[in-house]
Amino acid sequence: MAMTMTQKILAHAAKKDEVKAGELISIPCDVVLGNDITTPVAIDEFEKYGFESVYDKDKICIVCDHFTPNKDIKAAKQSARCRQFASKYDITHFYDVGKMGIEHALLPEQGIVKAGQVIIGADSHTCTYGALGAFSTGVGSTDMCAGMKSGKCWFKVPAAQRFVLHGKLSPHVSGKDVILHIIGMIGVDGALYQSMEFCGEGVASLSMDDRFTIANMGIEAGAKNAIFPVDEQTRRYMREHNAGEYIEFAADEDAPYVESYDIDLSTLKPTVSLPHLPENAREVAALDKIEIQQVVIGSCTNGRISDLEAAAKVFEGRQVHDGVRAIIIPATQEIYLEAMRRGYLETFMLAGCAVSTPTCGPCLGGHMGILAPHERCVATTNRNFVGRMGDTTSEVYLASPETAAASAVAGYITTPDKL
Amino acid sequence: MAMTMTQKILAHAAKKDEVKAGELISIPCDVVLGNDITTPVAIDEFEKYGFESVYDKDKICIVCDHFTPNKDIKAAKQSARCRQFASKYDITHFYDVGKMGIEHALLPEQGIVKAGQVIIGADSHTCTYGALGAFSTGVGSTDMCAGMKSGKCWFKVPAAQRFVLHGKLSPHVSGKDVILHIIGMIGVDGALYQSMEFCGEGVASLSMDDRFTIANMGIEAGAKNAIFPVDEQTRRYMREHNAGEYIEFAADEDAPYVESYDIDLSTLKPTVSLPHLPENAREVAALDKIEIQQVVIGSCTNGRISDLEAAAKVFEGRQVHDGVRAIIIPATQEIYLEAMRRGYLETFMLAGCAVSTPTCGPCLGGHMGILAPHERCVATTNRNFVGRMGDTTSEVYLASPETAAASAVAGYITTPDKL
Repeated sequence: MAMTMTQKILAHAAKKDEVKAGELISIPCDVVLGNDITTPVAIDEFEKYGFESVYDKDKICIVCDHFTPNKDIKAAKQSARCRQFASKYDITHFYDVGKMGIEHALLPEQGIVKAGQVIIGADSHTCTYGALGAFSTGVGSTDMCAGMKSGKCWFKVPAAQRFVLHGKLSPHVSGKDVILHIIGMIGVDGALYQSMEFCGEGVASLSMDDRFTIANMGIEAGAKNAIFPVDEQTRRYMREHNAGEYIEFAADEDAPYVESYDIDLSTLKPTVSLPHLPENAREVAALDKIEIQQVVIGSCTNGRISDLEAAAKVFEGRQVHDGVRAIIIPATQEIYLEAMRRGYLETFMLAGCAVSTPTCGPCLGGHMGILAPHERCVATTNRNFVGRMGDTTSEVYLASPETAAASAVAGYITTPDKL
Repeated sequence: MAMTMTQKILAHAAKKDEVKAGELISIPCDVVLGNDITTPVAIDEFEKYGFESVYDKDKICIVCDHFTPNKDIKAAKQSARCRQFASKYDITHFYDVGKMGIEHALLPEQGIVKAGQVIIGADSHTCTYGALGAFSTGVGSTDMCAGMKSGKCWFKVPAAQRFVLHGKLSPHVSGKDVILHIIGMIGVDGALYQSMEFCGEGVASLSMDDRFTIANMGIEAGAKNAIFPVDEQTRRYMREHNAGEYIEFAADEDAPYVESYDIDLSTLKPTVSLPHLPENAREVAALDKIEIQQVVIGSCTNGRISDLEAAAKVFEGRQVHDGVRAIIIPATQEIYLEAMRRGYLETFMLAGCAVSTPTCGPCLGGHMGILAPHERCVATTNRNFVGRMGDTTSEVYLASPETAAASAVAGYITTPDKL
């Protein structure tokens, strides 16, 4: 039977000739990931069961990224618990303050995740690694616990939707606009427990960073996973990041898809998702003048080097508008260093931005830019739920780095070509 | 009657020929300062009294530095309140995220504070500006409120202690070691409600940054203010920072001092104040091996460019020890930018440090590096009280940037010459 790209990976992992949508399988995991919020919960379970060993110390990743550098005593205790566990079991991939980054930017950068793998992470945006042609999905802390002990996880094989990309993006339009457009089109439950499989000749025109951004927000349409085909760009990325050996899978030509969408990238415009759901996508050009008080450029969605490059081009020679706080958060230490070497950080500073050390920070209302009542923020993050970044009367507008930077300069939501 | 340097400034402000210790005076203030924690309290008072104007919008400074970029909704509300007040009264010197710094590094840098002034600030470390030959002291939020409305403040003229400095500091010994040594000598109430007046030929050998650090911690000996004579270095600093016109005062030769101490700078050694009081000063060389988990280099005490320079020299070509988080916090945007241009930030990053946007952050347990139970931190901050930086069982060791950096590399408290 013909299979989707996701199903091909799952069948291989299950050592089966085929799997089909709805089938339950238990398969080995190549990577089991947790962060400073979810890992302590998994450790609690781990200890409750009396486990005293992990299945493979090289295949577990623990990243202290959400509330770090620790924002309060509770966060400090959570990080300490991660640290002690990582030390006790000699976890190879433990990332702490000063040697870390936001997990979903860090793991690809460190060559830990790659094509063909099965990856689970106790964080919903684990779907990001689908950009590399892996099956990668978010799980709960209990699954993380079981994964750390057994190296396995249960799945119901997902059905899939296909997104056939054509053409090329216009200037000032990025992967973020693509995924906001798609979520606007299919809704926040539009791909519920299904794979979002991207294909078509338009994929080649998307940078790896664009693909990470698109796959990252698959979960915002309810997807079980999002996945891109492996091409020359993917291979180069993995080579440059020392990912080592990997396996390429491709969907069968006659693979079964529940839905298939054709998307002409060249028709897409800069897009913003209005409060309080990612599906409230609107073209920026169609908006009234919406004044803002804060801009955040960063997160696992858009804190990569090309995101900072795009923002820096907008800020170059310009100033953040009076009354707006612009907070730039490079996603990893390496990205921070590279942005500094390329002069982006200097551009941000001269424009009047604050440059933060890598952290998830304000995206989930953690710290580093929490909103007061009635404040509005344009953010390159992934969720704009009620109260997500602060007070329940505050508002988050999801956008690309270019739109966010332009809005910081203008003081209202706009695009660089309008400055 | 002969007067101290402080008394000369106060007499001038009071338009009197002389003032003496214990006398009550009401004098005009050149600067009234508040931060994001103390200003909202002052605004509450301001509104309770029904005030509807400020005495001089150019002489009020409001700096959002303690819990910024906002760490939670409460902090966001506090900053919002500062912002609204600053906007309503068109406060000239309002500093927000991206255009700010830690108040006591920022005001001298921006040329707002200078020799001969009377400065009150609703923050205890307002005594910092004494380094420039000003009378500068911390007050409560109610005094800040009265100061914003009337431009005046009441004082009891302080008696004074004299610290006569001789010689020059040895390598790896800095202003921080000087002030820790002095507090160790006289105790945390050793200068209670008195002026600490520094003089002697040794002053000339101290950089302005060393003087800021020393004056900054005068309050840790209970001093009303700390003050340095104005010399060529002071004048150059004010010129370079566009401070404009200023008035120089000098103590009378026969000025009355309650105590006088002679300090030979050349005999001082790298010093650390052990938990939980700044007076617990010990020479680093005399300590047992005290393992640490965190290092913080920053704060109004030691977040200036020469502090970062000293730390960068230690980190150059070295790595932060496994199990230690090293957090570097440049005190202002300008310092951050300069440290970046000089390559210090790259050195920190390559060594495995986290580099934060300017904030008071962990110094007062705000955010950006809070300690878990039983963790030990070497910090260039100013207070090591119980629970100051996190859990009540955590410990803070006060030290210079060089000692802090060396300790980060070694994993225990040590000095650069021992690496």
